[in-house]
Amino acid sequence: MGKEVYLDNSATTKPYKDVVDAMVEMLTENYGNPSSLHKKGIDAERAIKKAREAIARVLDVKNTEIYFTSGGTESNNIAIQGIALAHRKRGNHLITTAIEHPSVLNTFKFLEEMGYRVSYLSVDSHGIISLEELEKEIRDDTILVSIMHVNNETGAIQPVEEVRRILNAKKSKAFFHVDAVQSFGKIPFTPKQMGIDMLSISAHKLHGPKGVGALYVNKGVLIRPIVYGGSQEVGLRSGTENVPGIVGFGKAVELIFDNIDEKIRKMYSLKEGLKQRILEKIDNVFINGQLEGKSAPHILNVSFPGIRAEVLLHALEDKGIYVSTGSACSSNKPSPSHVLTAMGVSRECIEGAIRFSVSELNSMEEIEYCVEQLSAIVVQLRKYVRR
Amino acid sequence: MGKEVYLDNSATTKPYKDVVDAMVEMLTENYGNPSSLHKKGIDAERAIKKAREAIARVLDVKNTEIYFTSGGTESNNIAIQGIALAHRKRGNHLITTAIEHPSVLNTFKFLEEMGYRVSYLSVDSHGIISLEELEKEIRDDTILVSIMHVNNETGAIQPVEEVRRILNAKKSKAFFHVDAVQSFGKIPFTPKQMGIDMLSISAHKLHGPKGVGALYVNKGVLIRPIVYGGSQEVGLRSGTENVPGIVGFGKAVELIFDNIDEKIRKMYSLKEGLKQRILEKIDNVFINGQLEGKSAPHILNVSFPGIRAEVLLHALEDKGIYVSTGSACSSNKPSPSHVLTAMGVSRECIEGAIRFSVSELNSMEEIEYCVEQLSAIVVQLRKYVRR
Repeated sequence: MGKEVYLDNSATTKPYKDVVDAMVEMLTENYGNPSSLHKKGIDAERAIKKAREAIARVLDVKNTEIYFTSGGTESNNIAIQGIALAHRKRGNHLITTAIEHPSVLNTFKFLEEMGYRVSYLSVDSHGIISLEELEKEIRDDTILVSIMHVNNETGAIQPVEEVRRILNAKKSKAFFHVDAVQSFGKIPFTPKQMGIDMLSISAHKLHGPKGVGALYVNKGVLIRPIVYGGSQEVGLRSGTENVPGIVGFGKAVELIFDNIDEKIRKMYSLKEGLKQRILEKIDNVFINGQLEGKSAPHILNVSFPGIRAEVLLHALEDKGIYVSTGSACSSNKPSPSHVLTAMGVSRECIEGAIRFSVSELNSMEEIEYCVEQLSAIVVQLRKYVRR
Repeated sequence: MGKEVYLDNSATTKPYKDVVDAMVEMLTENYGNPSSLHKKGIDAERAIKKAREAIARVLDVKNTEIYFTSGGTESNNIAIQGIALAHRKRGNHLITTAIEHPSVLNTFKFLEEMGYRVSYLSVDSHGIISLEELEKEIRDDTILVSIMHVNNETGAIQPVEEVRRILNAKKSKAFFHVDAVQSFGKIPFTPKQMGIDMLSISAHKLHGPKGVGALYVNKGVLIRPIVYGGSQEVGLRSGTENVPGIVGFGKAVELIFDNIDEKIRKMYSLKEGLKQRILEKIDNVFINGQLEGKSAPHILNVSFPGIRAEVLLHALEDKGIYVSTGSACSSNKPSPSHVLTAMGVSRECIEGAIRFSVSELNSMEEIEYCVEQLSAIVVQLRKYVRR
């Protein structure tokens, strides 16, 4: 097998070895059902408790405010549908943004079909929402504001704290949900510091396993479940707990938050290195949504006008370099990125947009190898693709 | 560590070693996001396809009719809520039974709150529904009949084929959902042979991992999703696929269906051995819901009147024997078993009911050890618990 440089860490990450080991233990020895009353059940329940504590600790919230789910998509759905269903009597209006992940956008589309009114905030050319627009959209019957923390395609950081300030200033009773799938473990924050009522996170974006996520719900907030059953997770998320997944999630969180500042610095420096080298070595490129100080450490979205992103992706793949066009989560149905479109990026730049996303497991050597190959490929492709 | 005899296989099973190995490969090497366009994504997608084919093959259905979910509870919710939401215009009436799993019963309760009418079929003293009652309940506006195949507390097999025959005879257009979580891998059947439109199954009941299940949906049947997002699983179940879990599920199905008749014979003989020895060695016991030929190979529910099941469970636990009182899935909130109550079992027999559930990994030596300890404990406890 040749060289492999994995730069698609916003799509998913490689689980840490210790995460896999912890999961294997739950699969081979500690395989009980947490609802069972005997030792095997109690041991499984204890393992879940430990994972819950690890996550509550880094978010500085109560253990009882963390609910495990099957992933970020389900967390977003429970938060948004859960508030809409539970508080319809109080109001019918919801606010979100035009650049959310499909698991948020499509949930709001479903709620529109159900008769709710939804305002979609626009973004500027850096991919950041306008607080003035938010202020105008908040109404007496607004029951939910849902805004992502870090955009999954561009890495743009939304002004979450200011959103809470505006909600308070307008004395709004709307609940505030934040999709933090791309920021948890990448940006230091706590929900309380930012005035967040509900927060969605996912394990497989930070070297944990796929198939598990969590939802933080401020203890005063009433939401309805969307799946009914044996009342696991205090009834908010029924179904036998994914014990190995939850334990892997807890372990990944422990590991990533150990010396997290250093990990974040490393990611920023890899991303900056990548950006600088691309700008130095390749003509006619555009960096999308990287406003100084408002950009996550791990995502770099670059347009190569004149080149179709998919062609570039496969040429890089031939060199063992894995990147993404737009976001993985919506690449099942190839259509122009709704995020770059909302930012007013030109059609040509959208069609030539590549997302590079690093993790702390990448190295500067990998970045250098990537840019070396990338610059050669871009020259080559631009020769063929004359306009 | 002392002797361990795990007889709680209806709550969950120990994953096969090959299942764990297959999962580890997906966690360490093949960790791509199936939605990614590059090799790592394609490899992950291929692994899912292989698992889907393994399950479709043993059910004798098309690959495109199998949808992966986070488990049996979610499969049941998608099937039931999905039909109710998609076909409300056609009718408002639903039929199920009084002895379903909480993930079915509580979903119907939610639908009742939403304005649907639900008929709950009663059962006889063997825990089996009455076909006459079903026939009477079917109306022109019945859109769904949901009946479990094997009851999780007693092992009673419901007359699924006859349900379809009655639906056909009455020219009903109701869809037919079957919760097969406890029968898949235990009883040979195919959905087509039985006229089933939707079928729920779960991995961790057959030596696969927790956190993954599947729903078979006959291709002609329209259902609505309950979770919205990136349109994975053809839009029926959005969210990044739990690739290691799905691969583990596929491997478990391959393994259990290899020589399945022999495995089923082994489970029956373990259960029969357990039953005979208990009846021989222990006075005043009652076997619940074991009608000849209408009982699953792996579940034996026994009442020890005069003894509280929880006390017996913990006494057995001290000897390394793991069993269940009622079903694990609802033991979070201890209340008298709704299944045994529906069967008309006396209060005393309900309070003293233990569920033993075997798997092909158990041995007759374990059964003998279990009954030896059990009979000694029962004598001991009955001494103390004088009425």
